[in-house]
Amino acid sequence: MNIPRSSFPRIVIIGGGFGGIALAQRLSRKEVQVVLLDKNNYHCFQPLLYQVSTGGLEPDSIAYPLRKVLIGYDNFFFRLAEVLEIEPENKLLNTSIGTLSYDYLVVATGSETNFYGNTELEQNGMAMKTIPQSLNLRSLILENFEQALLTDDYHERDALMNFVIVGGGPTGVELAGALAEIKKGILPKDYPDLDTRRATINLIQSGDRILNAMSGQASKKAEDFLEKLGVQVWKGVRVTGYDGKTVTTRTDLTFESATLVWAAGVKGATVAGLDVKELLTTGSRLAVNEFNQVVGYPEIFAIGDVACMQTDERPNGHPMMAQPAIQQGRQLGENLVRLIEKKPLKPFDYTDKGSMATVGRNKAVCDLEHLKFQGVFAWFVWMFVHLFFLIGFRNRVVVFVNWVYNYIKFDREARLIIRPYKRDYSQFKD
Amino acid sequence: MNIPRSSFPRIVIIGGGFGGIALAQRLSRKEVQVVLLDKNNYHCFQPLLYQVSTGGLEPDSIAYPLRKVLIGYDNFFFRLAEVLEIEPENKLLNTSIGTLSYDYLVVATGSETNFYGNTELEQNGMAMKTIPQSLNLRSLILENFEQALLTDDYHERDALMNFVIVGGGPTGVELAGALAEIKKGILPKDYPDLDTRRATINLIQSGDRILNAMSGQASKKAEDFLEKLGVQVWKGVRVTGYDGKTVTTRTDLTFESATLVWAAGVKGATVAGLDVKELLTTGSRLAVNEFNQVVGYPEIFAIGDVACMQTDERPNGHPMMAQPAIQQGRQLGENLVRLIEKKPLKPFDYTDKGSMATVGRNKAVCDLEHLKFQGVFAWFVWMFVHLFFLIGFRNRVVVFVNWVYNYIKFDREARLIIRPYKRDYSQFKD
Repeated sequence: MNIPRSSFPRIVIIGGGFGGIALAQRLSRKEVQVVLLDKNNYHCFQPLLYQVSTGGLEPDSIAYPLRKVLIGYDNFFFRLAEVLEIEPENKLLNTSIGTLSYDYLVVATGSETNFYGNTELEQNGMAMKTIPQSLNLRSLILENFEQALLTDDYHERDALMNFVIVGGGPTGVELAGALAEIKKGILPKDYPDLDTRRATINLIQSGDRILNAMSGQASKKAEDFLEKLGVQVWKGVRVTGYDGKTVTTRTDLTFESATLVWAAGVKGATVAGLDVKELLTTGSRLAVNEFNQVVGYPEIFAIGDVACMQTDERPNGHPMMAQPAIQQGRQLGENLVRLIEKKPLKPFDYTDKGSMATVGRNKAVCDLEHLKFQGVFAWFVWMFVHLFFLIGFRNRVVVFVNWVYNYIKFDREARLIIRPYKRDYSQFKD
Repeated sequence: MNIPRSSFPRIVIIGGGFGGIALAQRLSRKEVQVVLLDKNNYHCFQPLLYQVSTGGLEPDSIAYPLRKVLIGYDNFFFRLAEVLEIEPENKLLNTSIGTLSYDYLVVATGSETNFYGNTELEQNGMAMKTIPQSLNLRSLILENFEQALLTDDYHERDALMNFVIVGGGPTGVELAGALAEIKKGILPKDYPDLDTRRATINLIQSGDRILNAMSGQASKKAEDFLEKLGVQVWKGVRVTGYDGKTVTTRTDLTFESATLVWAAGVKGATVAGLDVKELLTTGSRLAVNEFNQVVGYPEIFAIGDVACMQTDERPNGHPMMAQPAIQQGRQLGENLVRLIEKKPLKPFDYTDKGSMATVGRNKAVCDLEHLKFQGVFAWFVWMFVHLFFLIGFRNRVVVFVNWVYNYIKFDREARLIIRPYKRDYSQFKD
């Protein structure tokens, strides 16, 4: 890779997510050379992917060109590349566009959907961790209704209008709520010749409550909200398989459905080349010390979802969300400068700003440190916080315009099948 | 196709473009059953596709769900289907989702890119008539610059940054102008480590002036504008081939380029099954009489780009643009009702509202019947007219927000490679 060496140390960041960007911004005016690598040329605001899947927002309004993040700063390089392997002994990266040497390496690759080795689920289920995946899901949802119009077999029709969402975390809850609102507000108008009352949305949670990373109060209220919207919440149910037609569970409960969305697990998106077999902690994450240093590799750091900083207080590391990634990125930015200046590093101290999830219009749940609240105010807080963290002024305005429009009109207009999802519907014809 | 027959005559419209929508709207409260078929579930505002290709607008903001067009009207059906063949003797359509009978059929299938049988150009050139094609072109443009960063061979780098646009009509002119503005306003900031001054934009016109459907004054001024923006305008040059690397012309002039955009011709997107070999007129269009009736088929009509209504005044039919399609759709809506009521039909009378093209910020050309003007005011008129004809309030607001932002910031933020275009760059490595 033809990036000139400067007299400053070279810090290579793999991944332009929340962590990678926060770190790059912190390093922007320092005496270092920063190389940011990502397999996409954009940053994706993952918390709003479910709105892309459900036609509420365009993909471009929750994505931001990575080249713009550090526009105008010297000694900053972006390359569109996939990292194939780290060679820590040579301080080298092998990538899809050639090799690159580093002085310090930061792995900020985030997380990917975890199917826990179930290849059937992986093949037939839909994941929703990237923009292309969300667009695929949007297409599939819309195609299912177009297909439902074509059949006279009511079993088939029900299966096409039956949505199974596995995983009762924020992603599953938010997607289930959005689908329920589409069922109520859009389907009867769009499909007057289809009995869309028969559409069902199932949210399946293996544990005994949804949003189990939040307070019991939030879980309870979110479940109330979902039930009010008509979502069927199944707790204590563990999905075992899906052949594209029938969802099986550990008991003899089954669901006939053309759509299974898998939001039941994530794992760290690790990079090959690190000898960390012993160190991989919960969910394929890289074990890091309190300075986000990958254990055993003093020049390699990991931040965000892919990093697992185990402490007595947090034996499973920090939650795999935007906030720890952003805070670790900022802290590491300072620590890297300290490291280069041979000053002692400062340990990471996480400030829990709370968590929230939205279920539908006027319906959200918020857990702050000293205050838990639900309903309309929580929903406004949720929107404000998401607009605030969205990157780019234009994105904020466009998202805001869409939200206002969707709120007033009970509508979601980005429901276009721009990227057809090729589903084999023949299996429903038996 | 399970669409119930009503007591009213069934009018089937193939295609939800400008013509099909105008017709459907005109028929919305009449005593007819309307079935609209389209292979996409959205209407696409084609005049702004070049802004999608160049990152100025999101695809969703120039598209509109077809199901929304006639929401709430009785006896209106939409089906996502591709029409394979018309069986006029049985008044039947064979489609990708089954057969459908009609009483009256309207072919409003629009036009498609015409490569005039040159398969090499078709395989290696980029068309820009649909949203997926525009997104492919957007990806290719961006990927070329990422690729240009990776090479030390300056011939290859120049070819990657060299854009050849064939066709000096509004599409070619608008795309060339937009690329020139990207070169000036965005590339130097996005690619500080690339000498983007070497990027070249070539607009090739076979005739002796660009915008040859407009006034000489407009042609001249548009060419001035393009030259001011740094576009190389080649007149009297006829492109003969493109192998993905070298653009050949009828003379020994060649261009080394990774991107050829073919905007040099369109043809009617006709449907199989009509015995019209004798009647196909200029550019594969269906010959229609003054009531838009396809010659030889009293129950079949054609409107818009696919129709060619030859008159003494217009031996080649009407221009293949939005206005004739909209006006014919409206007129045919009235005529179909008259036909059913056994009243005499009214002949189509085209009102030429003029034409316009934009070259860049503050630079457009307008030809009205009694007034021709160019520059800033023309540019404002162009924007106002396009916002006015764009379908959907949300689309108008989102497009307006983007235009204001792009104008103030000299920016185009929708420059994401969401749909990678897999280009084989190996041929540049010889």
